[in-house]
Amino acid sequence: MAKTVSTKPPSGFRDFLGEASKARSSLQHKIEMLYRSRGFESLETPALENLEVLLGSGGQENEKLIFKSLKRGEKLQRVLEKNVSEADTARENDLADMGLRFDLTVPLCRAVAEYQSEITLPWKVFHMGPVWRAERPQRGRFREFVQCDVDIIGSSSYAAELEVMGALGGAFEVCGLSGLRLRYSHRKLLEALSKQWGFGDKLSEFAIVLDKKDKMPLEKLFVELRELRGENLSSDLEKALCENWSLEEALSSLKSLSSEEKLVFSDFESFSKNLEENSLSEFARFEFDLSLVRGMGYYTGCVFEIMHPTESFALGGGGRYDELTGRFMKKALPAVGGSLGFERLLLLLESQMKGAEFQEGLFVCVFEEALRPSLLKIAKDLRGQGVSVDIYADEAKLKSQLKYASQKKYRWVLIAGPEELAKSKVSLKDLTSSEEESYSLDEASLSKLAKKVLADK
Amino acid sequence: MAKTVSTKPPSGFRDFLGEASKARSSLQHKIEMLYRSRGFESLETPALENLEVLLGSGGQENEKLIFKSLKRGEKLQRVLEKNVSEADTARENDLADMGLRFDLTVPLCRAVAEYQSEITLPWKVFHMGPVWRAERPQRGRFREFVQCDVDIIGSSSYAAELEVMGALGGAFEVCGLSGLRLRYSHRKLLEALSKQWGFGDKLSEFAIVLDKKDKMPLEKLFVELRELRGENLSSDLEKALCENWSLEEALSSLKSLSSEEKLVFSDFESFSKNLEENSLSEFARFEFDLSLVRGMGYYTGCVFEIMHPTESFALGGGGRYDELTGRFMKKALPAVGGSLGFERLLLLLESQMKGAEFQEGLFVCVFEEALRPSLLKIAKDLRGQGVSVDIYADEAKLKSQLKYASQKKYRWVLIAGPEELAKSKVSLKDLTSSEEESYSLDEASLSKLAKKVLADK
Repeated sequence: MAKTVSTKPPSGFRDFLGEASKARSSLQHKIEMLYRSRGFESLETPALENLEVLLGSGGQENEKLIFKSLKRGEKLQRVLEKNVSEADTARENDLADMGLRFDLTVPLCRAVAEYQSEITLPWKVFHMGPVWRAERPQRGRFREFVQCDVDIIGSSSYAAELEVMGALGGAFEVCGLSGLRLRYSHRKLLEALSKQWGFGDKLSEFAIVLDKKDKMPLEKLFVELRELRGENLSSDLEKALCENWSLEEALSSLKSLSSEEKLVFSDFESFSKNLEENSLSEFARFEFDLSLVRGMGYYTGCVFEIMHPTESFALGGGGRYDELTGRFMKKALPAVGGSLGFERLLLLLESQMKGAEFQEGLFVCVFEEALRPSLLKIAKDLRGQGVSVDIYADEAKLKSQLKYASQKKYRWVLIAGPEELAKSKVSLKDLTSSEEESYSLDEASLSKLAKKVLADK
Repeated sequence: MAKTVSTKPPSGFRDFLGEASKARSSLQHKIEMLYRSRGFESLETPALENLEVLLGSGGQENEKLIFKSLKRGEKLQRVLEKNVSEADTARENDLADMGLRFDLTVPLCRAVAEYQSEITLPWKVFHMGPVWRAERPQRGRFREFVQCDVDIIGSSSYAAELEVMGALGGAFEVCGLSGLRLRYSHRKLLEALSKQWGFGDKLSEFAIVLDKKDKMPLEKLFVELRELRGENLSSDLEKALCENWSLEEALSSLKSLSSEEKLVFSDFESFSKNLEENSLSEFARFEFDLSLVRGMGYYTGCVFEIMHPTESFALGGGGRYDELTGRFMKKALPAVGGSLGFERLLLLLESQMKGAEFQEGLFVCVFEEALRPSLLKIAKDLRGQGVSVDIYADEAKLKSQLKYASQKKYRWVLIAGPEELAKSKVSLKDLTSSEEESYSLDEASLSKLAKKVLADK
C-alpha cells in the first residue's frame, strides 16, 4: 500500500501527545472538580445537533461557521435527484441535517427546555467539551477547541452573577493564577446611552465599533463613530470614553428613564458596590467599563470579562442572557453564564510552568523473558501499595531498556537478574545518581521500596 | 418566538445530566488514571479526520457508517455546479471532505506515522473519547459513544499482549469488577484451520458464521457452514466445535505447516501456557476459544475478549494488528491494542451500585441578601479547608432554600440569621436528623465544622 494519504490532522485541527495531552486532561479535571465543589452539576450534550437547533440561535457570526453533516442514504438520494435549478444556498441546507455545535450555550438552552420538569431551579450547571467552528485556519486559531461553561438557570438575582464569577475565579485560583481583574458592564445601560447619544437604531453597529476601543487610538475610534452616526458626536460620548466613566458618572448622565430602567440601574449600582467591597476575593480588582461589549447579541444584563496581568486577551467572560431559552420554551427562564478560555488558559499555564522533572512511579526492566511472570507478580504487589508501575513491553537488552526508562523520564528502575530473583531479591536503581539498593521480596522490604518511590510524588 | 424547534437531541444521540453525567466523567477519569499508572501516555486526536484517512482503513462495515462533513464555501459551490449526470455515489464523496472518526484505531495509526520521529518505541499509548457511527438508531445502540483504547506500538513480543490485557484487567479491577474471564485465540491459527477445513478462499465468510457460535444451536451453525462450503463438513471441524478444542488439540490437528507457521504457533503455545499459569491475576480465568473471531479484518495475531460472569456481551477485547500502520508509513510497525466497552461497563456498574446517598459538602442558605457578602467570606474559609461549598444562587425564603438543599441531596446546611452573624455565630444543620449545632466564626471552631462535614467524604 503506497503512502499517499496525508498523515496530518485536517487543516486547523490538532493532535496532542504525551505531556501536552496530559496537561489538557489534567486541567479539564481540575476545572471540573472546582465547579463540582461549588455545587454545579455537569451536563453532557452530543457533538452533533439538529441544524434547526443551531441555526437562528443568536450565535450570529458563529452560525456561518457550522460544520454540517451530510444527510445519508435515501434522504441524501432524494436531495441529489432534485432539480438543480434551485438556489445553491437552499440546496446547501437541504444536503445536511445536523451540524457540529459551535458553542455550548445553544445545546444548554435546548437541554433546559427538554428537561425542565427534571431540574431543580436555580439550576447550577457546568458543561465542558470541544466545540467546532469552520474558521479560516490561521496561527493560534483552531477549528476544534474546548469550552468550559458554567451557568445558572432560573435566578433573576445578582446572586447568580456572583456565583458564576466566583466559580470562574475559583477555577483560575486552583490553577495558581492571581492578580486577575474583572471588567463588567450592563447591556441595558449601553443601550440607554447609545440611544441618548444618537445611535438608537444602530445599536449593534455602535457596539461593534466600541468593542475596538482597546485596539485603536481614541481619535480613530471617534472617526469611525462619527461616520456611523453621520454627524458630530455627543460631547458626553467623547467624555465618557476619554475619561473612562465610572458607573456613577454613566448613570448620572442618563436622562428620562422609565421606571423599569430606574429599577434595573439602581439594582446594578448596588451589585457594583457589593462587588467593589470585594466579597469575591478570587479577584484582585473589579472595574466598571462602559466600553465592554462582549460579542454575543443574546446578553440582556450584566456582562463581564476576566483579564490577567500579562495577557491582552480576556481569559474568560460571560453575562446574563434572560431571553435565550425562549427559543425553545414558552416562557424564557432567566440565565447567567460564564466561560473560561480553556485554550488560552492552557497556553498561559504552559508558559509559566516547566514540565514535571520525573515521571511518577517505577519502571521494571525485564532481564529475560522467563522472569516476566515473577516480575509481574512483584509489579502487582507494588501497585497494591499505590505505586505506578510500568514494565518493559518488548524484548531487548538491559541497556536499551534503561535508555527507554530514562527517555520516559523515570527516576526509579527495578532490575533483577535470575540469580537475584532466585534469592528473592531485586535492585532499585536511582537513575539520577545511578545508585542501586538491594531489597528482599518480603512484605516489609517491598513496602520500604514502595515508600521510597512514593516519596517523590 | 414560537416553540417549533424540537428540543430532543438528534435521533440516536444522548444528553446526560446530573448523576448520569457525573458517573460517566468519573469512570473515564478512573480508567485514565489506571492506564497512566501503568506507563501508558495519552493521545488526543480530532473528532474530524480527512475522508481519505477514514476510507479504505480496514474498518470495513464501519466505513459505511461515517458521518461526513459537507464541504464549505467555494469548494462546495464548485461541486454543486457540476454536471449532475455523474453517478450519485461519486457526488456523495465529492460533497464531503472530512468525516467524524468511527473508531480510535485509524486516528492512532495516522498519528503513529505522523509522529514516528518523536515517539519512543515501544510506544505505550491510550486514547479515549467519543466516536460516531451512523447506525440505524435502536434500543441500546447509539450514534455517539465513548471508546477507551490502549495500544502498544513497536513490539512484536507477547510482552505487549500481556501489558494490554493487564491494563484492561486493571481498569476493570479499579471499577470493582471481579471474576472476569479472558477468551483468546490467534487469527493465523484460524486461517490455517479454515484452509485445512476447505474454506481457504472464504476465510472471512467462514469467520462471520463462526462468530455466531454462541448465538445459535450448534446444529444450525453446521447447516450454515455446510451451505457456505457447498459440501459436507470436515469431521475435524465438527469435532473442534462440539468439543471446544483446547489449543493443544487444535495445534495437533494441523498438517503441513510452513516453518514460519510452526514458529508462530509454538510461540503462541508458550504464551498460552504463561497466561494459564496466571501471571495476570487481574483475570479469574483464561480460556482458549477457537470460535473467537472479533469483527475487525485487520487483526494478524492473538485476539481476545473479556467476559463478565453476568453479561453475555464482551466488556472489552482486542488483538494484534501488525499491518494496519502500513497504510500510512513505508514499513508497518507491529502493534497490539485493546478496547474497553465503556458504555457497557457503565451500564453494568450502574446496575451494581446505588447512587451516592448524599451530595458531598455543605450548602449555605442565604437568610437575607444583605448577609451574602459575610456568608461568601465564610464559604471561602471553608473552601480553604477542603470543604465543597454550594451557596444559594437566588433570593428565596429559608424554607425553599432548605427544600432545594434537600433536593440536591445535601446532608449539611449552614444557616445564619442577622442576629447570629452579629454575634459571629452560624448554625450547622444535619438534614438527616434535623439537629442543629452552633459554631463560632473563630478559626478553631470553623475547622471543627469543616471536619464534621469532611468526615462524610
